[in-house]
Amino acid sequence: MKSYRKELWFEIPRRRGFVNITHTLQDCVRESGIKEGLLLCNAMHITASVFINDDESGLHHDFEVWLEKLAPEKPYSQYKHNGFEDNADAHLKRTIMGREVVVAITDGKLDLGPWEQVFYGEFDGMRKKRVLVKIIGE
Amino acid sequence: MKSYRKELWFEIPRRRGFVNITHTLQDCVRESGIKEGLLLCNAMHITASVFINDDESGLHHDFEVWLEKLAPEKPYSQYKHNGFEDNADAHLKRTIMGREVVVAITDGKLDLGPWEQVFYGEFDGMRKKRVLVKIIGE
Amino acid sequence: MKSYRKELWFEIPRRRGFVNITHTLQDCVRESGIKEGLLLCNAMHITASVFINDDESGLHHDFEVWLEKLAPEKPYSQYKHNGFEDNADAHLKRTIMGREVVVAITDGKLDLGPWEQVFYGEFDGMRKKRVLVKIIGE
Repeated sequence: MKSYRKELWFEIPRRRGFVNITHTLQDCVRESGIKEGLLLCNAMHITASVFINDDESGLHHDFEVWLEKLAPEKPYSQYKHNGFEDNADAHLKRTIMGREVVVAITDGKLDLGPWEQVFYGEFDGMRKKRVLVKIIGE
Repeated sequence: MKSYRKELWFEIPRRRGFVNITHTLQDCVRESGIKEGLLLCNAMHITASVFINDDESGLHHDFEVWLEKLAPEKPYSQYKHNGFEDNADAHLKRTIMGREVVVAITDGKLDLGPWEQVFYGEFDGMRKKRVLVKIIGE
Repeated sequence: MKSYRKELWFEIPRRRGFVNITHTLQDCVRESGIKEGLLLCNAMHITASVFINDDESGLHHDFEVWLEKLAPEKPYSQYKHNGFEDNADAHLKRTIMGREVVVAITDGKLDLGPWEQVFYGEFDGMRKKRVLVKIIGE
Protein backbone atom coordinates (compact mmCIF):
# COMPACT_ATOMS: atom_id res chain seq x y z
CA MET A 1 0.00 0.00 0.00
CA LYS A 2 1.20 3.49 -0.89
CA SER A 3 0.17 6.68 0.84
CA TYR A 4 0.44 10.35 -0.11
CA ARG A 5 -0.11 13.56 1.85
CA LYS A 6 -0.24 17.17 0.81
CA GLU A 7 -1.49 20.42 2.35
CA LEU A 8 -3.13 23.04 0.14
CA TRP A 9 -3.14 26.66 1.35
CA PHE A 10 -5.83 29.26 0.70
CA GLU A 11 -6.29 32.92 1.57
CA ILE A 12 -9.70 34.10 0.42
CA PRO A 13 -9.84 37.94 0.32
CA ARG A 14 -13.50 37.99 1.47
CA ARG A 15 -15.42 36.41 4.34
CA ARG A 16 -16.97 33.79 2.06
CA GLY A 17 -16.00 32.23 -1.27
CA PHE A 18 -15.70 28.98 -3.25
CA VAL A 19 -12.55 27.79 -5.09
CA ASN A 20 -12.60 24.93 -7.60
CA ILE A 21 -9.78 22.56 -6.56
CA THR A 22 -10.55 19.66 -8.92
CA HIS A 23 -7.45 20.17 -11.08
CA THR A 24 -5.21 20.52 -8.04
CA LEU A 25 -6.53 17.20 -6.71
CA GLN A 26 -5.93 15.55 -10.09
CA ASP A 27 -2.31 16.80 -9.87
CA CYS A 28 -2.05 15.23 -6.41
CA VAL A 29 -3.27 11.89 -7.73
CA ARG A 30 -0.69 12.01 -10.56
CA GLU A 31 2.08 12.99 -8.13
CA SER A 32 1.13 10.12 -5.79
CA GLY A 33 1.55 7.46 -8.47
CA ILE A 34 -1.49 5.69 -7.00
CA LYS A 35 -3.68 3.98 -9.60
CA GLU A 36 -6.43 2.41 -7.45
CA GLY A 37 -7.46 3.75 -4.07
CA LEU A 38 -9.28 6.42 -2.11
CA LEU A 39 -8.59 10.13 -1.80
CA LEU A 40 -9.67 12.04 1.29
CA CYS A 41 -9.80 15.81 1.02
CA ASN A 42 -10.83 17.75 4.12
CA ALA A 43 -10.74 21.27 5.46
CA MET A 44 -8.29 21.43 8.39
CA HIS A 45 -10.27 24.38 9.79
CA ILE A 46 -13.72 24.19 11.33
CA THR A 47 -15.12 27.23 9.53
CA ALA A 48 -14.37 25.90 6.04
CA SER A 49 -15.62 23.06 3.87
CA VAL A 50 -14.62 20.74 1.06
CA PHE A 51 -17.64 19.74 -1.03
CA ILE A 52 -18.65 18.50 -4.48
CA ASN A 53 -21.17 20.29 -6.63
CA ASP A 54 -21.58 22.21 -9.90
CA ASP A 55 -19.17 24.92 -11.12
CA GLU A 56 -21.96 27.34 -12.05
CA SER A 57 -21.96 30.92 -10.78
CA GLY A 58 -25.77 31.14 -10.48
CA LEU A 59 -25.78 28.10 -8.20
CA HIS A 60 -22.93 29.52 -6.12
CA HIS A 61 -25.00 32.66 -5.61
CA ASP A 62 -27.95 30.45 -4.59
CA PHE A 63 -25.74 28.67 -2.04
CA GLU A 64 -24.71 32.03 -0.53
CA VAL A 65 -28.32 33.22 -0.19
CA TRP A 66 -29.49 29.85 1.12
CA LEU A 67 -26.75 29.49 3.74
CA GLU A 68 -27.43 33.02 4.95
CA LYS A 69 -31.09 32.05 5.36
CA LEU A 70 -30.30 28.81 7.27
CA ALA A 71 -27.46 30.23 9.39
CA PRO A 72 -27.37 34.05 9.18
CA GLU A 73 -24.09 35.87 9.89
CA LYS A 74 -25.79 38.78 11.70
CA PRO A 75 -26.76 39.89 14.25
CA TYR A 76 -23.56 38.52 15.80
CA SER A 77 -25.19 38.68 19.24
CA GLN A 78 -27.58 35.81 18.38
CA TYR A 79 -24.76 33.28 18.93
CA LYS A 80 -23.10 32.47 22.28
CA HIS A 81 -19.89 31.53 20.44
CA ASN A 82 -19.52 35.18 19.41
CA GLY A 83 -17.87 36.44 22.60
CA PHE A 84 -14.33 37.04 21.35
CA GLU A 85 -15.13 35.95 17.79
CA ASP A 86 -17.84 36.73 15.25
CA ASN A 87 -17.75 33.51 13.23
CA ALA A 88 -20.37 31.23 14.79
CA ASP A 89 -22.36 31.33 11.54
CA ALA A 90 -19.28 30.00 9.70
CA HIS A 91 -19.22 26.90 11.95
CA LEU A 92 -22.90 26.27 11.14
CA LYS A 93 -22.59 26.96 7.40
CA ARG A 94 -19.66 24.57 7.12
CA THR A 95 -21.71 21.91 8.92
CA ILE A 96 -24.35 22.14 6.15
CA MET A 97 -21.72 22.01 3.38
CA GLY A 98 -19.60 19.25 4.98
CA ARG A 99 -16.00 18.97 6.15
CA GLU A 100 -14.67 16.43 3.69
CA VAL A 101 -15.10 14.41 0.53
CA VAL A 102 -13.85 10.91 -0.24
CA VAL A 103 -13.26 10.28 -3.95
CA ALA A 104 -12.38 7.00 -5.65
CA ILE A 105 -9.14 6.77 -7.63
CA THR A 106 -9.48 4.52 -10.70
CA ASP A 107 -6.81 4.04 -13.40
CA GLY A 108 -4.77 6.83 -11.82
CA LYS A 109 -7.56 9.42 -12.04
CA LEU A 110 -10.25 10.98 -9.83
CA ASP A 111 -13.32 8.84 -10.51
CA LEU A 112 -15.89 11.67 -10.71
CA GLY A 113 -19.22 11.93 -12.52
CA PRO A 114 -19.40 14.29 -15.52
CA TRP A 115 -20.55 17.35 -13.54
CA GLU A 116 -18.81 16.65 -10.24
CA GLN A 117 -16.36 19.39 -9.29
CA VAL A 118 -14.57 19.63 -5.94
CA PHE A 119 -14.62 22.98 -4.10
CA TYR A 120 -12.95 24.60 -1.14
CA GLY A 121 -15.70 26.53 0.67
CA GLU A 122 -14.58 29.42 2.86
CA PHE A 123 -16.95 30.89 5.46
CA ASP A 124 -14.52 32.94 7.58
CA GLY A 125 -11.83 34.14 5.21
CA MET A 126 -9.24 36.91 5.04
CA ARG A 127 -6.70 34.61 6.69
CA LYS A 128 -4.49 31.69 5.59
CA LYS A 129 -6.17 28.30 5.91
CA ARG A 130 -5.31 24.73 4.98
CA VAL A 131 -6.86 21.72 3.26
CA LEU A 132 -5.47 18.19 3.68
CA VAL A 133 -5.20 15.72 0.81
CA LYS A 134 -4.50 12.12 1.79
CA ILE A 135 -4.45 9.27 -0.72
CA ILE A 136 -4.04 5.57 0.01
CA GLY A 137 -3.94 2.75 -2.51
CA GLU A 138 -1.63 1.06 -4.97
CA MET B 1 -4.45 -4.55 -1.58
CA LYS B 2 -7.46 -5.36 -3.73
CA SER B 3 -9.83 -2.86 -5.31
CA TYR B 4 -13.31 -3.16 -6.80
CA ARG B 5 -15.44 -0.74 -8.82
CA LYS B 6 -19.04 -0.89 -9.94
CA GLU B 7 -21.57 1.60 -11.29
CA LEU B 8 -25.22 1.27 -10.28
CA TRP B 9 -27.86 2.84 -12.57
CA PHE B 10 -31.17 4.34 -11.49
CA GLU B 11 -34.11 5.90 -13.29
CA ILE B 12 -36.63 7.20 -10.77
CA PRO B 13 -40.03 7.85 -12.44
CA ARG B 14 -40.69 10.93 -10.27
CA ARG B 15 -38.73 14.07 -9.42
CA ARG B 16 -37.86 12.76 -5.96
CA GLY B 17 -37.57 9.31 -4.40
CA PHE B 18 -35.49 7.05 -2.17
CA VAL B 19 -34.26 3.53 -3.09
CA ASN B 20 -32.83 1.10 -0.52
CA ILE B 21 -29.50 -0.14 -1.98
CA THR B 22 -28.20 -2.03 1.07
CA HIS B 23 -28.58 -5.48 -0.50
CA THR B 24 -26.98 -4.34 -3.74
CA LEU B 25 -23.98 -3.08 -1.79
CA GLN B 26 -23.76 -6.36 0.12
CA ASP B 27 -23.65 -8.14 -3.28
CA CYS B 28 -20.81 -5.83 -4.34
CA VAL B 29 -18.84 -6.70 -1.21
CA ARG B 30 -19.32 -10.43 -1.88
CA GLU B 31 -18.35 -10.01 -5.55
CA SER B 32 -15.21 -8.06 -4.56
CA GLY B 33 -13.89 -10.87 -2.37
CA ILE B 34 -12.66 -8.21 0.06
CA LYS B 35 -12.87 -9.24 3.73
CA GLU B 36 -11.48 -6.17 5.53
CA GLY B 37 -11.57 -2.68 4.09
CA LEU B 38 -13.62 0.40 3.27
CA LEU B 39 -16.50 0.84 0.85
CA LEU B 40 -17.20 4.24 -0.70
CA CYS B 41 -20.62 4.71 -2.28
CA ASN B 42 -21.34 8.09 -3.87
CA ALA B 43 -23.81 9.68 -6.24
CA MET B 44 -22.02 10.56 -9.49
CA HIS B 45 -24.59 13.32 -10.07
CA ILE B 46 -24.83 16.55 -8.11
CA THR B 47 -28.61 16.48 -7.68
CA ALA B 48 -28.65 13.06 -5.98
CA SER B 49 -27.46 11.61 -2.70
CA VAL B 50 -26.32 8.42 -1.03
CA PHE B 51 -27.17 8.42 2.66
CA ILE B 52 -27.82 6.10 5.61
CA ASN B 53 -31.01 6.20 7.64
CA ASP B 54 -34.11 4.18 8.54
CA ASP B 55 -36.23 2.24 6.01
CA GLU B 56 -39.52 3.55 7.38
CA SER B 57 -42.09 5.15 5.10
CA GLY B 58 -43.30 7.68 7.68
CA LEU B 59 -39.76 8.97 8.10
CA HIS B 60 -39.28 9.15 4.33
CA HIS B 61 -42.40 11.31 4.14
CA ASP B 62 -40.96 13.51 6.92
CA PHE B 63 -37.73 13.91 4.92
CA GLU B 64 -39.72 15.03 1.86
CA VAL B 65 -41.68 17.65 3.84
CA TRP B 66 -38.58 18.83 5.71
CA LEU B 67 -36.37 19.17 2.62
CA GLU B 68 -39.15 21.13 0.87
CA LYS B 69 -39.24 23.45 3.88
CA LEU B 70 -35.45 23.97 3.97
CA ALA B 71 -34.96 24.19 0.18
CA PRO B 72 -38.31 24.59 -1.63
CA GLU B 73 -38.60 23.51 -5.25
CA LYS B 74 -40.88 26.42 -6.21
CA PRO B 75 -41.09 29.19 -7.21
CA TYR B 76 -38.33 28.28 -9.66
CA SER B 77 -37.54 31.98 -10.11
CA GLN B 78 -36.14 32.26 -6.57
CA TYR B 79 -32.89 30.59 -7.72
CA LYS B 80 -30.33 32.12 -10.13
CA HIS B 81 -29.30 28.60 -11.22
CA ASN B 82 -32.77 28.16 -12.77
CA GLY B 83 -32.10 29.89 -16.09
CA PHE B 84 -32.07 26.92 -18.45
CA GLU B 85 -32.81 24.40 -15.66
CA ASP B 86 -35.31 24.13 -12.82
CA ASN B 87 -33.30 21.96 -10.44
CA ALA B 88 -31.50 24.39 -8.11
CA ASP B 89 -33.50 23.02 -5.18
CA ALA B 90 -32.17 19.53 -5.97
CA HIS B 91 -28.56 20.75 -5.58
CA LEU B 92 -29.46 22.19 -2.17
CA LYS B 93 -31.48 19.18 -1.00
CA ARG B 94 -28.65 16.84 -1.91
CA THR B 95 -26.24 19.03 0.07
CA ILE B 96 -28.36 18.45 3.20
CA MET B 97 -28.57 14.69 2.59
CA GLY B 98 -24.91 14.25 1.57
CA ARG B 99 -23.11 12.97 -1.53
CA GLU B 100 -21.53 9.81 -0.16
CA VAL B 101 -21.19 7.25 2.57
CA VAL B 102 -18.12 5.33 3.68
CA VAL B 103 -18.90 1.96 5.26
CA ALA B 104 -16.49 -0.44 6.96
CA ILE B 105 -16.13 -3.97 5.58
CA THR B 106 -15.53 -6.56 8.31
CA ASP B 107 -15.42 -10.35 7.80
CA GLY B 108 -16.58 -9.88 4.21
CA LYS B 109 -19.73 -7.95 5.17
CA LEU B 110 -20.98 -4.37 5.40
CA ASP B 111 -20.32 -3.41 9.03
CA LEU B 112 -23.62 -1.58 9.70
CA GLY B 113 -25.59 -0.97 12.88
CA PRO B 114 -28.90 -2.86 13.29
CA TRP B 115 -31.08 -0.10 11.76
CA GLU B 116 -28.61 1.35 9.28
CA GLN B 117 -29.86 1.09 5.70
CA VAL B 118 -28.17 2.73 2.69
CA PHE B 119 -30.33 4.75 0.28
CA TYR B 120 -30.02 6.35 -3.09
CA GLY B 121 -31.77 9.71 -2.82
CA GLU B 122 -33.04 11.26 -6.05
CA PHE B 123 -33.98 14.96 -6.16
CA ASP B 124 -34.15 15.52 -9.94
CA GLY B 125 -35.34 12.26 -11.42
CA MET B 126 -37.03 11.04 -14.59
CA ARG B 127 -33.61 10.45 -16.16
CA LYS B 128 -30.87 7.80 -15.90
CA LYS B 129 -28.31 8.49 -13.19
CA ARG B 130 -25.36 6.64 -11.70
CA VAL B 131 -23.92 5.72 -8.33
CA LEU B 132 -20.30 4.64 -7.87
CA VAL B 133 -19.25 1.80 -5.57
CA LYS B 134 -15.52 1.57 -4.82
CA ILE B 135 -14.08 -0.90 -2.34
CA ILE B 136 -10.47 -1.20 -1.21
CA GLY B 137 -9.05 -3.71 1.22
CA GLU B 138 -7.85 -7.29 1.43
CA MET C 1 -2.51 -3.85 4.63
CA LYS C 2 -3.57 -3.89 8.28
CA SER C 3 -7.07 -3.30 9.57
CA TYR C 4 -8.46 -2.48 13.01
CA ARG C 5 -11.99 -2.40 14.39
CA LYS C 6 -13.41 -1.17 17.67
CA GLU C 7 -16.86 -0.32 19.02
CA LEU C 8 -17.26 2.59 21.43
CA TRP C 9 -20.32 2.62 23.71
CA PHE C 10 -22.17 5.67 24.98
CA GLU C 11 -25.14 6.26 27.27
CA ILE C 12 -25.98 9.95 27.36
CA PRO C 13 -28.23 10.75 30.36
CA ARG C 14 -30.20 13.36 28.38
CA ARG C 15 -31.99 13.39 25.03
CA ARG C 16 -29.19 15.39 23.39
CA GLY C 17 -25.48 15.87 24.10
CA PHE C 18 -21.99 16.04 22.58
CA VAL C 19 -18.98 14.00 23.76
CA ASN C 20 -15.42 14.77 22.66
CA ILE C 21 -13.94 11.44 21.45
CA THR C 22 -10.69 12.75 19.96
CA HIS C 23 -8.44 11.19 22.62
CA THR C 24 -10.26 7.86 22.39
CA LEU C 25 -9.68 7.82 18.63
CA GLN C 26 -6.01 8.64 19.15
CA ASP C 27 -5.81 5.62 21.50
CA CYS C 28 -7.40 3.48 18.76
CA VAL C 29 -4.78 4.62 16.25
CA ARG C 30 -1.97 3.77 18.70
CA GLU C 31 -3.54 0.37 19.47
CA SER C 32 -3.89 -0.39 15.74
CA GLY C 33 -0.18 0.09 15.07
CA ILE C 34 -1.13 1.72 11.76
CA LYS C 35 1.18 4.55 10.73
CA GLU C 36 -0.30 5.65 7.38
CA GLY C 37 -3.94 5.15 6.45
CA LEU C 38 -7.53 6.24 6.89
CA LEU C 39 -9.76 6.10 9.95
CA LEU C 40 -13.54 5.86 9.57
CA CYS C 41 -15.60 6.73 12.62
CA ASN C 42 -19.39 6.46 12.29
CA ALA C 43 -22.46 6.33 14.47
CA MET C 44 -24.00 2.84 14.24
CA HIS C 45 -27.38 4.37 15.11
CA ILE C 46 -29.46 6.59 12.85
CA THR C 47 -30.33 9.16 15.51
CA ALA C 48 -26.71 9.95 16.38
CA SER C 49 -23.79 11.59 14.65
CA VAL C 50 -20.02 11.70 14.54
CA PHE C 51 -18.74 15.13 13.47
CA ILE C 52 -15.74 17.43 13.69
CA ASN C 53 -15.95 20.95 15.07
CA ASP C 54 -14.79 23.16 17.95
CA ASP C 55 -14.76 22.12 21.63
CA GLU C 56 -16.33 25.37 22.83
CA SER C 57 -19.40 25.37 25.05
CA GLY C 58 -20.91 28.53 23.53
CA LEU C 59 -20.79 26.95 20.09
CA HIS C 60 -22.33 23.73 21.40
CA HIS C 61 -25.21 25.81 22.79
CA ASP C 62 -25.54 27.50 19.38
CA PHE C 63 -25.73 24.06 17.70
CA GLU C 64 -28.54 23.02 20.06
CA VAL C 65 -30.58 26.17 19.37
CA TRP C 66 -29.91 26.01 15.63
CA LEU C 67 -30.82 22.33 15.25
CA GLU C 68 -34.03 22.92 17.21
CA LYS C 69 -34.85 25.72 14.76
CA LEU C 70 -34.13 23.61 11.65
CA ALA C 71 -35.72 20.38 12.93
CA PRO C 72 -37.81 21.01 16.08
CA GLU C 73 -38.41 18.15 18.51
CA LYS C 74 -42.01 19.22 19.25
CA PRO C 75 -44.86 19.02 18.57
CA TYR C 76 -44.25 15.30 18.07
CA SER C 77 -47.39 15.10 15.93
CA GLN C 78 -45.77 17.10 13.10
CA TYR C 79 -43.82 13.98 12.01
CA LYS C 80 -45.35 10.82 10.48
CA HIS C 81 -42.45 8.77 11.90
CA ASN C 82 -43.73 9.55 15.41
CA GLY C 83 -46.38 6.81 15.62
CA PHE C 84 -44.74 4.45 18.11
CA GLU C 85 -41.66 6.65 18.56
CA ASP C 86 -41.05 10.34 19.25
CA ASN C 87 -37.60 10.67 17.69
CA ALA C 88 -38.22 11.83 14.09
CA ASP C 89 -36.43 15.12 14.87
CA ALA C 90 -33.35 13.11 15.93
CA HIS C 91 -33.17 11.48 12.47
CA LEU C 92 -33.29 14.95 10.86
CA LYS C 93 -30.82 16.57 13.26
CA ARG C 94 -28.31 13.78 12.71
CA THR C 95 -28.69 14.27 8.93
CA ILE C 96 -27.54 17.90 9.33
CA MET C 97 -24.61 16.92 11.57
CA GLY C 98 -23.54 13.87 9.52
CA ARG C 99 -23.18 10.16 10.22
CA GLU C 100 -19.42 9.77 9.91
CA VAL C 101 -15.99 11.30 9.60
CA VAL C 102 -12.97 10.03 7.70
CA VAL C 103 -9.65 11.17 9.17
CA ALA C 104 -6.18 10.69 7.73
CA ILE C 105 -3.59 8.80 9.78
CA THR C 106 -0.06 10.18 9.30
CA ASP C 107 3.05 9.08 11.25
CA GLY C 108 0.82 7.02 13.55
CA LYS C 109 -1.38 9.98 14.55
CA LEU C 110 -4.76 11.49 13.67
CA ASP C 111 -3.92 14.12 11.04
CA LEU C 112 -6.21 16.90 12.32
CA GLY C 113 -6.02 20.67 12.02
CA PRO C 114 -5.22 22.66 15.21
CA TRP C 115 -8.87 23.22 16.23
CA GLU C 116 -10.40 20.02 14.85
CA GLN C 117 -12.01 17.91 17.57
CA VAL C 118 -14.12 14.80 16.92
CA PHE C 119 -17.50 14.52 18.68
CA TYR C 120 -20.17 11.94 19.25
CA GLY C 121 -23.48 13.74 18.83
CA GLU C 122 -26.50 12.22 20.55
CA PHE C 123 -30.01 13.29 19.55
CA ASP C 124 -32.07 10.51 21.15
CA GLY C 125 -30.22 9.50 24.28
CA MET C 126 -30.97 7.81 27.60
CA ARG C 127 -30.07 4.45 26.06
CA LYS C 128 -26.86 2.59 25.16
CA LYS C 129 -25.59 3.32 21.65
CA ARG C 130 -22.51 2.43 19.63
CA VAL C 131 -19.90 4.09 17.42
CA LEU C 132 -17.71 2.13 15.02
CA VAL C 133 -14.02 2.85 14.52
CA LYS C 134 -12.41 1.18 11.51
CA ILE C 135 -8.82 1.87 10.45
CA ILE C 136 -7.04 0.55 7.38
CA GLY C 137 -3.46 1.20 6.37
CA GLU C 138 0.09 0.09 7.10
